[in-house]
This record gives sequence, structure tokens and C-alpha cells, in this order.
Amino acid sequence: MENTVQLLEDESIDDLQLKGLHLIQKKSGFRFGVDAVLLSDFANIKKKHRVIDICTGTGIVPFLVYGKYEPNQVVGLEIQEDMVEMAKRSVKYNNLQEKIKFKCGDLKDKKLLDTLGKFDVLTVNPPYKLNNAGILNPNDKLAIARHEIMCRLEDVIIASRRLLKDNGRMYIVHRPERLIDIFELMRKYNIEPKRVKMIQPNPKKAPNIVLVEGQRDGGAFLKWDAPLYVYNEDGTYSKELNEIYGREG
Amino acid sequence: MENTVQLLEDESIDDLQLKGLHLIQKKSGFRFGVDAVLLSDFANIKKKHRVIDICTGTGIVPFLVYGKYEPNQVVGLEIQEDMVEMAKRSVKYNNLQEKIKFKCGDLKDKKLLDTLGKFDVLTVNPPYKLNNAGILNPNDKLAIARHEIMCRLEDVIIASRRLLKDNGRMYIVHRPERLIDIFELMRKYNIEPKRVKMIQPNPKKAPNIVLVEGQRDGGAFLKWDAPLYVYNEDGTYSKELNEIYGREG
Repeated sequence: MENTVQLLEDESIDDLQLKGLHLIQKKSGFRFGVDAVLLSDFANIKKKHRVIDICTGTGIVPFLVYGKYEPNQVVGLEIQEDMVEMAKRSVKYNNLQEKIKFKCGDLKDKKLLDTLGKFDVLTVNPPYKLNNAGILNPNDKLAIARHEIMCRLEDVIIASRRLLKDNGRMYIVHRPERLIDIFELMRKYNIEPKRVKMIQPNPKKAPNIVLVEGQRDGGAFLKWDAPLYVYNEDGTYSKELNEIYGREG
Repeated sequence: MENTVQLLEDESIDDLQLKGLHLIQKKSGFRFGVDAVLLSDFANIKKKHRVIDICTGTGIVPFLVYGKYEPNQVVGLEIQEDMVEMAKRSVKYNNLQEKIKFKCGDLKDKKLLDTLGKFDVLTVNPPYKLNNAGILNPNDKLAIARHEIMCRLEDVIIASRRLLKDNGRMYIVHRPERLIDIFELMRKYNIEPKRVKMIQPNPKKAPNIVLVEGQRDGGAFLKWDAPLYVYNEDGTYSKELNEIYGREG
């Protein structure tokens, strides 16, 4: 049964096409994309797990993770207050107050992280553009979601180590051109990269999204998955992508 | 015009299907494979370049590189004396004494490296298996070609830095599960990884070969090429692979 929640101007409630779940998003602001869908599909999550999604934004990943795996609890951490307030209204709308919690705070705040406890699994779809343009407006929410304004990749990895249980797993979605930095920083903080999956627009194009699984204090052995192709060569969605979205291929 | 060279027992002279070049190989020992062909195709080499191939073995990469790009000079460095002697006979057979030279020596010998001078381009198809089996016979030439017995990946990178000119490029073929180590060691010795290409058996399988281009003291930006698929899904060779081999697809 859905609760009544208030929608602000410029907001919509979107059907996630997954077990009746819905998400409140800005009509004109940051709207979730294929990254969040791929990340939640890539993660290995069991019902007994406690999961945290950092840089959670509208909360899309916690809802997708909950819909796919029904873990014991999912926590979303986000620095922007109005996003957290919107995500909390999505929780109420879906009647999932016992399962999904959102917390407003800075992932660089170690005291805050320690209040959240330890997690079996961490997911993160961080801002992926280097903040080297120098002309960005710090109040621009789209820019905060996409550029390393409020946190750097290194901050994300440091927070991940702190939030994970021993041998806990992190899953990150990023851009292939940052893979050296991802590997380097994960190893620096003893989260060993264990599995990589490349996403290509189609089999003839270079990868444009990368998914990495790391294990806190894991042993060194890196496994590569077969890549996923978003489109067929004729421009239609691939069978694999349709399966991830739960659509008929 | 081909010179007469003496073939030892268990040797064959194989046609490289490239500008009439031939290579002497053992019939039952290490014989060149797709790695060498992919590596020489991946490298960007100009006629004015001085090129070195380390861990050169039978010398296959210098011959392929010479056949494809006709650089000013190609040097091959190999630690096993009998391999070098065989490669020198291949040079004589092809009448390329002015263009291709082989040197016997250990790439960990810094004095030796300094006598070779500096190079625009370095290629390497190193032993790719970690030497952690502990039961390998050090006289087994196949084992030396495939396992890190005589040199570790780190030795290869250290030698590469020493042999390259400022901003010179190295090209390495390896296994995807070692990509973290390759990135980490290249950065440790200031050879910045600039380009990666994955090789997959076919579009549905995970990559099993990786090609990496690095630049000595290069700036950080990593580009990914589209992968290459060795076979079509029906098991025939792909058009791309046939093009690299110079065969009709």
C-alpha cells in the first residue's frame, strides 16, 4: 500500500518497473541513468547483508538493491540535504521505513561514519569528472553529482574502507579512463580489486563505463567478466541490458 | 635474396606471410603465437624509430615489427644463448644484418642496457605466469618463456624505463589478471599507461589478453580501444584478426 507524500514543484514520482517500487526525482535535475542500474546488477548481495550506498543522491541505488536482493537493511548516505529529504519521501511512499534509511552527511566525516556501523557491502556511483575546470558553481546540483567537487575518489575509497566489515565487498561504477586511479587507490587503502566488468555502447566501440568489485583486505587475484554491450549494432537495446532492466528482450 | 643458413635438428624455417620474411623456430619448443602478432600490430612505430624488443625469444617480434613498419633499426634482447644464436641465423637468412640485431644478455644488467643506447619504442611479451609453482625446471625453455623465472614484471618495467628515450613508448602484451600490477609498476617507474586494448576469444567471453601502451614520463590520461575478438561466434577467425595476419577475411 502506498502512502501519500507531498511532491514539490518540479518533482515526479517514477515507476522503477521493479516490484512496484517508485522514486521521487526532480523533473529537470539529476535523474538516474544506466550507471545506477548496472551497479545494482553487478553487486553480489544476500538477504542477510547490511548494505550502504554512498554518494546516494536521490537514493536510486538503495531502492534498486532492495528491489533486486531484499537485503536486511540498506542505508544511503548523501551530503545534499534537499536530496536526502526527497529520498526520505521516496521511502515513505514505498512504505520501506524498516528497510531503507537515508542519512545526510559528509563521507569525509569519520565520526559520522562510525555512527553508521559496519557493512557487508558498499555501493557507490561517485562523481566521476575531475574537478579541474575551475569554473563550476558549487550550488549546481548536477555539477555536484558529476564532478569531484564535494569529494574526491580518494575520499570515497577511504570512507569505503572505514564502512566495510573485514572482507566486505565494495562495488563502484566509474569511467574506464580512471581505472588506474581506482586500482591504485583501492590498493593504497587495502581494498583489493577482485573483479572488473566493462560496459561498451556496442561490440565495436570502446568501453565507456567500468564496474569494479573490491574486497577489504582481500588477496590479489583479478577476474575479468565478459563485457556488457548496451546496444546491438542495429541501435536496439541488447538482450542483456533488457534482462537487467527486467524487460522482454 | 635468401642466404643459406644451417638448420639444427628439430628446427624449421617458417614463412611469416609478411614481405617474404622467415623465422627459424624449434619444431617442438616455444613457437610464436597470437601474442607476438597482436603486440606488433598494437605498437605505433615510424620509419625513423629505433626499436628494442626485450624478452625477444626466437626474435619473432623484431621480424614482425620490421616487416610492418620498416623502422631504422630493431634490437632484440634475450637471455638464452641458444635462442639468440637461432635468431641471428634468422637475420642472416632474411639478409637483414643492417636492420635487425640480437644481443644476448640479462635485462637486469644495467651496464649492458647502457651499452645498447636509448630507444624510441620498446616492445615486450614477457613471461606472464607468476613463478609460484616452485617445481619448475630452470633448464626448461618453455617454462622460461612462460613463467617469471629469469625476470619478474618489475624487472621488465625497470629495464624499459632505462632503455627508453624521454617520452618514448613501451608496448606490453600480458594477461588481464595482471593489469593492476602492470599499472602499479608502470606508475612506480614513471611510465604512464596511456592506452589499453583488450583481446577476447569472442564478444561473449571475458578478455584473456591485454595490450598496454605506456609513455616514459607521460601525463595521466588513459584511453581504451575497442576490444578485438579473435573468433566470430561461429568459431571462424574474425575479420579483424585476419586483417592483422594479412589474410583475406
